[in-house]
Amino acid sequence: MSTIQSRIRRKSLLNKVVQPEELIPMFKNGMNLGWSGFTPVGYPKVMPVALADHVEQNNLQGKLRFNLFIGASVGVETEDRWASLDMIDRRWPYQTGKNIQKGINSGKIRMGDKHLGHFAQDIGYGFYTENGRIDIAIIECTDIAEDGGLVLSGSCGICPELCQVADKIIIELNTEMPSHEGLHDIIEPVAPPNRLPYLITDAGSRAGSPYVRCDPDKIVAIVESKKLDNGRPLGPPDEISEQIADHILDFLQNEVKRGRLPKNLLPLQSGVGNIANAVVGGLVKGPFKNLSVYTEVLQDTMLDFFDSGKLDFASACSLSLSNEGFKRLYANWDEYTKKIVLRQLSISNHPEPIRRLGCIAMNTPVEFDIYAHANSTLVGGTRMINGLGGSGDFLRNGFLKIMHTPSVRPSKSDPTGITCVVPKAPHVDHTEHDLDVLVTEQGLADCRGLAPKDRAQVIIDKCVHPDYKPIIQEYFDMAKKICLEKGVGHEPQLFDRCFKMQWNLEKNGTMKVDNWDVKIDF
Amino acid sequence: MSTIQSRIRRKSLLNKVVQPEELIPMFKNGMNLGWSGFTPVGYPKVMPVALADHVEQNNLQGKLRFNLFIGASVGVETEDRWASLDMIDRRWPYQTGKNIQKGINSGKIRMGDKHLGHFAQDIGYGFYTENGRIDIAIIECTDIAEDGGLVLSGSCGICPELCQVADKIIIELNTEMPSHEGLHDIIEPVAPPNRLPYLITDAGSRAGSPYVRCDPDKIVAIVESKKLDNGRPLGPPDEISEQIADHILDFLQNEVKRGRLPKNLLPLQSGVGNIANAVVGGLVKGPFKNLSVYTEVLQDTMLDFFDSGKLDFASACSLSLSNEGFKRLYANWDEYTKKIVLRQLSISNHPEPIRRLGCIAMNTPVEFDIYAHANSTLVGGTRMINGLGGSGDFLRNGFLKIMHTPSVRPSKSDPTGITCVVPKAPHVDHTEHDLDVLVTEQGLADCRGLAPKDRAQVIIDKCVHPDYKPIIQEYFDMAKKICLEKGVGHEPQLFDRCFKMQWNLEKNGTMKVDNWDVKIDF
Repeated sequence: MSTIQSRIRRKSLLNKVVQPEELIPMFKNGMNLGWSGFTPVGYPKVMPVALADHVEQNNLQGKLRFNLFIGASVGVETEDRWASLDMIDRRWPYQTGKNIQKGINSGKIRMGDKHLGHFAQDIGYGFYTENGRIDIAIIECTDIAEDGGLVLSGSCGICPELCQVADKIIIELNTEMPSHEGLHDIIEPVAPPNRLPYLITDAGSRAGSPYVRCDPDKIVAIVESKKLDNGRPLGPPDEISEQIADHILDFLQNEVKRGRLPKNLLPLQSGVGNIANAVVGGLVKGPFKNLSVYTEVLQDTMLDFFDSGKLDFASACSLSLSNEGFKRLYANWDEYTKKIVLRQLSISNHPEPIRRLGCIAMNTPVEFDIYAHANSTLVGGTRMINGLGGSGDFLRNGFLKIMHTPSVRPSKSDPTGITCVVPKAPHVDHTEHDLDVLVTEQGLADCRGLAPKDRAQVIIDKCVHPDYKPIIQEYFDMAKKICLEKGVGHEPQLFDRCFKMQWNLEKNGTMKVDNWDVKIDF
Repeated sequence: MSTIQSRIRRKSLLNKVVQPEELIPMFKNGMNLGWSGFTPVGYPKVMPVALADHVEQNNLQGKLRFNLFIGASVGVETEDRWASLDMIDRRWPYQTGKNIQKGINSGKIRMGDKHLGHFAQDIGYGFYTENGRIDIAIIECTDIAEDGGLVLSGSCGICPELCQVADKIIIELNTEMPSHEGLHDIIEPVAPPNRLPYLITDAGSRAGSPYVRCDPDKIVAIVESKKLDNGRPLGPPDEISEQIADHILDFLQNEVKRGRLPKNLLPLQSGVGNIANAVVGGLVKGPFKNLSVYTEVLQDTMLDFFDSGKLDFASACSLSLSNEGFKRLYANWDEYTKKIVLRQLSISNHPEPIRRLGCIAMNTPVEFDIYAHANSTLVGGTRMINGLGGSGDFLRNGFLKIMHTPSVRPSKSDPTGITCVVPKAPHVDHTEHDLDVLVTEQGLADCRGLAPKDRAQVIIDKCVHPDYKPIIQEYFDMAKKICLEKGVGHEPQLFDRCFKMQWNLEKNGTMKVDNWDVKIDF
């Protein structure tokens, strides 16, 4: 028996196995497609490439465009290539790749982002398409059970919702990776008012089934895939990230000392990127043990964390590993996976377990302002990078809400030309009501219980880079004086100059303004 | 037996009954105080007035200042009088009254606001004071049970948390109002990681106890109160609110028709004010029945809603009735209260039940912008009105997230001088990721599934007042053109003129700009 035959235990589906090329006529211009996949793991790798080849070979650029609904980012060889072939009209809610970003910011691709936990739920509610349905879902699996239940691969994403709202389903059965059976915990989505509590009381709780329930009659085809995930490589460790991690670890130790956190902390949520890796790196070496993780993605450093013996359990939506990381995981599959559960996005990012468990939420924004509003999505206030992701799901519902960023970034002409702490964020994804603690390599501002003007002073004192401290202090003092005199000074801002640093960046290549003078004629 | 003796069933507490004047020496400058009360009902009415009299009579203005932590607003005869006597240093998280607002916006009072559901929880976590404790809590009750359990009055607010973190508790035993025993459902707050699911599966679920657990040794005194709540009067019905309500009811009917809402809708959450009243008024006359309400406050129109036979059950944190409304309630107590449950703020506004039940959330902001960012708190971006309240708790977690406002308000010199739909909100409390539907008397914009530029066009078409439609359309077209050409146009804004309407209001008394030209020297 071939691997694919043994992996398809629902024998009535065996005759649905086809070559990808046979399925191309099924795809019509303007269709709503849903894919498995998340940060970029567990996405379909065969069908999207076959469609791209078809478009390229037949010069169909701009003539075969789709609306793509996927849990989060998928491999650049799929969505980014699709963007370069003008195959995407709408894309929700998160993406990566130069071509897709170019398409979005030049108006060719209509992207929208939303809290990932909301997106997952709302797609199941039918809020995203005209008829509430998805025309075709393409889902990567490692197995199909006797009852037609799907065993997903390295991420869960929005697959349970897709199986409910898709008219047709194409399975990519991946025979190159080990069977992932038993790794997932899937709770069948139920719409209100008949929803029951999710009985998740710690990171390791299992409250559902290892399978995604799927009507076998919807499965129109199965294609075999032998392609592995195009994993996310790890950035090199850097000094700034390690300084930020040190501030956070000191803070957590102090919270334990003050009795506000248990000795083994609370379940950790940590975003992607270098700072998240540095924090985990710090925990690997640090004093805490019996830790748990309830998060969205597991990066390579989580494997080190397990190896250290300090991490008891990790819950996530996705194994967001590098190619090296996957090798490590596959080589020691049983040991690692007995301490891991993968949940669908609508549960991994659901406020109910996040709030109940009391996650410590840590994420990186583009920038934040002196009153603790953060911009996570739009550089300069208008240019989309990747999307909001799950930062808001965790920051709004965690026990502690922490954002961290380097205090400055280089501009083209000035190595500290961009400050990541600004007078006023040009775009707001997380409000002052959502964040507790802000951190840069300069220090940590604990804003809990502080009124706006007190908060601003602490943020300036602790987080702003020395090059910008006098500049931003001058703005704050001036704004306070002018607004308080007018009796409108709860949260002082001067709307004729609050974006002067951004104007200066555009004109002079640096956010270092010489003074705060502005003359406006209108 | 006097009423107070019969209401204090814990007999060992009878000897704690004192006159309010005797307690004044207990209050020291700089103390952290927690009060019962919410929107302004169930607040202490005797002790705060006695303290204010003491300050006034002894010229102690500015010498006896407190930090006030209360679920939401309380009667103006208490906190607003305290503000006028300079008795407030810090105030969290919501307030009403001219004097307190003046104090806040001139820098005398340090107010902070936060999502009410977070505030309630975080005060229990000890995030608001240096030692995590509250020095004295003052709590209005109608009864004390044999085991010392407290029967609260017309609101629950943050009382369960206060009983945990307060060092001393003063009870105001209100003998003027009927016993409220059995009206409340209190879940003992437990900090993570030991928290269990809240077993609330419909508006009427009871998952706790009718009593607030309270260590009797913390109760240092009981004072009798014969004062009734200084209820919130209802605004008169107005045409604009009724037009807005009509749009919402049409929308809900259409959602039922499309199968996206059950025939009896989903539990309704509705903020305070005229539009909320008009929506409820519409439901009283409308086609829906077997409705339920899961909200923060019940206003007078809820009594009409019950009387109509269309409302099965209402869950709230507070009976925010007018004086007339309280008379109606007290006159028919048993009939009304068998269909009402009052919950503590940390549960009424908790994402877990709100998301599970799938509330239809409806709230009024100060303004919203073309991309669906809303400002709920700061007029002109800097001047505090009341605070964020629970709008974010419901909008972030509801099944449908609706905000409604008149499209314009008068300025001093122009009856339509202020547009409530602006190019860019000068302050953001709710982001584009949080809102589904925006409504003015002009129409309803259903933004679900729309990318930012599509969303902006729908909002301009449906919500903007005719006086402003060409002005805002011109801005949007210009911003689109300029940003898309530069390849930075995911969500176009022009940071050199996005606040020109606000500048024009300050200079010329109207937001109607003649053109979008701006010349800036810096």
